[in-house]
Amino acid sequence: MTQWETYLEEHRSEFQDEMLDFLRIPSISALPEHADDVQRAAQWTAERMEAAGIGGVRIMPTGGHPVVYGEWLRAPGKPTILIYGHFDTQPIDPLDLWTAPPFEPEVKDGRVYARGASDDKGNMLIPILAIEALLKGEGSLPVNLKFFFEGQEEIGSPQMSDFIAANKELLACDLALSADGSQWSETEPAILVSLRGICSVQIDIKGAKTDLHSGTYGGSIQNPIHALVRLLDSMRGPEGKILVEGFYDTVVDLSDADREEIRRVPYDEAEYLETLGVDGLFGEPGYSTWERTWIRPTLEANGIWGGFQGAGTKTVLPSEAHAKITCRLVANQDPRSIVELIIAHVEKHAPLGVKVTVSRFAYAKPYQIPTAHPGNEAARGVHEELYGKTPYYIRSGGTIPICSLFFEHLGVYTVVFAFGLQDERAHAPNEFFRLSSFERGQKAYCKLLLGMAEQAFSAQGKGL
Amino acid sequence: MTQWETYLEEHRSEFQDEMLDFLRIPSISALPEHADDVQRAAQWTAERMEAAGIGGVRIMPTGGHPVVYGEWLRAPGKPTILIYGHFDTQPIDPLDLWTAPPFEPEVKDGRVYARGASDDKGNMLIPILAIEALLKGEGSLPVNLKFFFEGQEEIGSPQMSDFIAANKELLACDLALSADGSQWSETEPAILVSLRGICSVQIDIKGAKTDLHSGTYGGSIQNPIHALVRLLDSMRGPEGKILVEGFYDTVVDLSDADREEIRRVPYDEAEYLETLGVDGLFGEPGYSTWERTWIRPTLEANGIWGGFQGAGTKTVLPSEAHAKITCRLVANQDPRSIVELIIAHVEKHAPLGVKVTVSRFAYAKPYQIPTAHPGNEAARGVHEELYGKTPYYIRSGGTIPICSLFFEHLGVYTVVFAFGLQDERAHAPNEFFRLSSFERGQKAYCKLLLGMAEQAFSAQGKGL
Repeated sequence: MTQWETYLEEHRSEFQDEMLDFLRIPSISALPEHADDVQRAAQWTAERMEAAGIGGVRIMPTGGHPVVYGEWLRAPGKPTILIYGHFDTQPIDPLDLWTAPPFEPEVKDGRVYARGASDDKGNMLIPILAIEALLKGEGSLPVNLKFFFEGQEEIGSPQMSDFIAANKELLACDLALSADGSQWSETEPAILVSLRGICSVQIDIKGAKTDLHSGTYGGSIQNPIHALVRLLDSMRGPEGKILVEGFYDTVVDLSDADREEIRRVPYDEAEYLETLGVDGLFGEPGYSTWERTWIRPTLEANGIWGGFQGAGTKTVLPSEAHAKITCRLVANQDPRSIVELIIAHVEKHAPLGVKVTVSRFAYAKPYQIPTAHPGNEAARGVHEELYGKTPYYIRSGGTIPICSLFFEHLGVYTVVFAFGLQDERAHAPNEFFRLSSFERGQKAYCKLLLGMAEQAFSAQGKGL
Repeated sequence: MTQWETYLEEHRSEFQDEMLDFLRIPSISALPEHADDVQRAAQWTAERMEAAGIGGVRIMPTGGHPVVYGEWLRAPGKPTILIYGHFDTQPIDPLDLWTAPPFEPEVKDGRVYARGASDDKGNMLIPILAIEALLKGEGSLPVNLKFFFEGQEEIGSPQMSDFIAANKELLACDLALSADGSQWSETEPAILVSLRGICSVQIDIKGAKTDLHSGTYGGSIQNPIHALVRLLDSMRGPEGKILVEGFYDTVVDLSDADREEIRRVPYDEAEYLETLGVDGLFGEPGYSTWERTWIRPTLEANGIWGGFQGAGTKTVLPSEAHAKITCRLVANQDPRSIVELIIAHVEKHAPLGVKVTVSRFAYAKPYQIPTAHPGNEAARGVHEELYGKTPYYIRSGGTIPICSLFFEHLGVYTVVFAFGLQDERAHAPNEFFRLSSFERGQKAYCKLLLGMAEQAFSAQGKGL
């Protein structure tokens, strides 16, 4: 057993306790009342990095939630790798569906249950611990490292584009590794070759100046809920096709080879339905489930509200109605352009008798990395060693905004090297992370960095 | 000046204080946590009736919020009049639009501001005070009286049908008077000749068993919000025409004479728009505003909710979405049949991949009284004396469920004799009632009862 392996072995229980500490911080980036908690999570991260032997650690302001940076640059001639993760979490509602308080982590049957366990605190902690094991066990690192942990991933990293652009030199590197992501299963590895982008809007509809009696006024003026319903319904066809004009215009169709690669990824429809608890699928005709979620764009309402939501009946004609929408985008859809198309659609279909406003939120471009990129090849080697299997080349329906930002501003690809699993309820009640993944991830990071010492990386051109 | 007039004059300030006391009770019938407050309002009402000299006062259980009954039956050979009102109120949300706490009444510029001031506590108190003035001033009443005050009008009087059916003898009378209703303006009286009925449903849509990550799953399963939006939109055409199959089948078209009577009622569109703060009207083509709100049925969403409603973005594919709907109904639509049509519509249009359930709530039939009914004629006489003007014969878009229940179970018409005005924000924030109406109403009730002593009333047949 190598020194670093012994170190990981001996600190297993201590590392697990530290993850629980990290998970106790309710660092919900979407809610202003938790801004201090996001800051506390940054502080916790910085202290843990310093304890690991990482140098130059600093909490950097961004205009929103902060970034934590650190570095270890004592391997001259060796590649410089930037390690990414995030210490913010999703909100916790609906709270009544959690079986235990989301920020009081519980370990049960080899899993730790808490908001942020899988996405992304458990995963983010892995490389810090791996580096500590290499430094304490071996005395040095095989490559140069930079660390970039952010606190606004779950709200779409609104300040990250400007921040990275303003810190190009500090962040300069040969390749990025994302500790935010997942593997295929407990026994099967996967390498991620594309991520969907995202854009987000809120639609606010205002009718009369106050809520009105639905008897006295019902029938004579527009009801903001019905106006909203009509507007939202105009955006999607009966089978889920998006009807916003121009929405699909810039979508690059996948090659037959790409589609064939997707067909090789296991898919069990009965299990898929069982996991979700639904009777049937619903989606764009002509595409498989993996295609619908990986390589086709979406427009989904994330929330809707207006009028009376209490028990029983309130005979009100409401004065307002609201909806939140996000689109998941694929190459080469530009998030800003898509938002403009949505706004144009809203203007074209604006119902009479109400005022409609659209607010713009998060943006992130879709991201793709060549399957055979040397970074992916290095990851494949580690996976084959640890799992005894060749990884699937998969795509994600989700978004890691930072991947496209690193590509855009730093000119580097990001290899997603993280150990979450799809069933771990990221963004949903009762999120959990497997302790087995936590431990395997630490070994995997050590092996990957050791293996990368002799490789050369480059962005291989800017064309996504 | 008569004795009763002197009595009213001398007790003006005391009566006003009593109204404020009554308004301090937050008797919101829709919210279970206020059930005790509704009971307190019943108690307050009973005590105030006894103090006025009304006999046989009792708080009667109904299985829901109670009824307060009382009587004065010492005018043998004279008609028996049943006086109706309600001591429950609407909920108070959205609370942030109130400029003062809704259950801390404030008197300002001749108006009392509080939830329930106009609808219906201020109006309900009027006949009690009028009777007190007659009894204390004159020593007796010109007619026999029964009092029926309920605590569940604002939730559609769900137990009242059974209650009235079970107490036919106790409630037997020649005519009912409703102290819930309104006049045309401060200077123009009105007599109400029809009320819309109501039915109410809640639609609940359930998708996956938990909220899901909108990236991971977006595109492959139905989103309950979009399913709800599609379902609601299928119920109304672009101009507000209701598309539920069979919805209009039982609607009786108004005669030309009826429509002409409606055309005589003043209507100022600029003022209407200004009052509501909207840029334009919206409603069923071919009908005027009064027709749309008085004699045409509606289907209005009163509330909608699902998914994330907080600040910013949450990239969730929600597991549930909900909507509350009420329909206002006109003769001869039957509320129970209309609910069944809605359920059939939902079943026919049920979106794939989600479970849809419909819950039934309140029902009330539409109500009509002949324009020249002797009760209306008696009211006209009082109005002409007090306002110096012939009343408009108007209709209401609202619902007073009790009117159709009295007709159905007791065989009597209800003359609406109440002094609210349409601008008093019933069901909305900053509700108020005019002190001038409060005082005029007391005089009007004394005069009406004195005038009714010589009249004979009957239901004039059951055909509505």
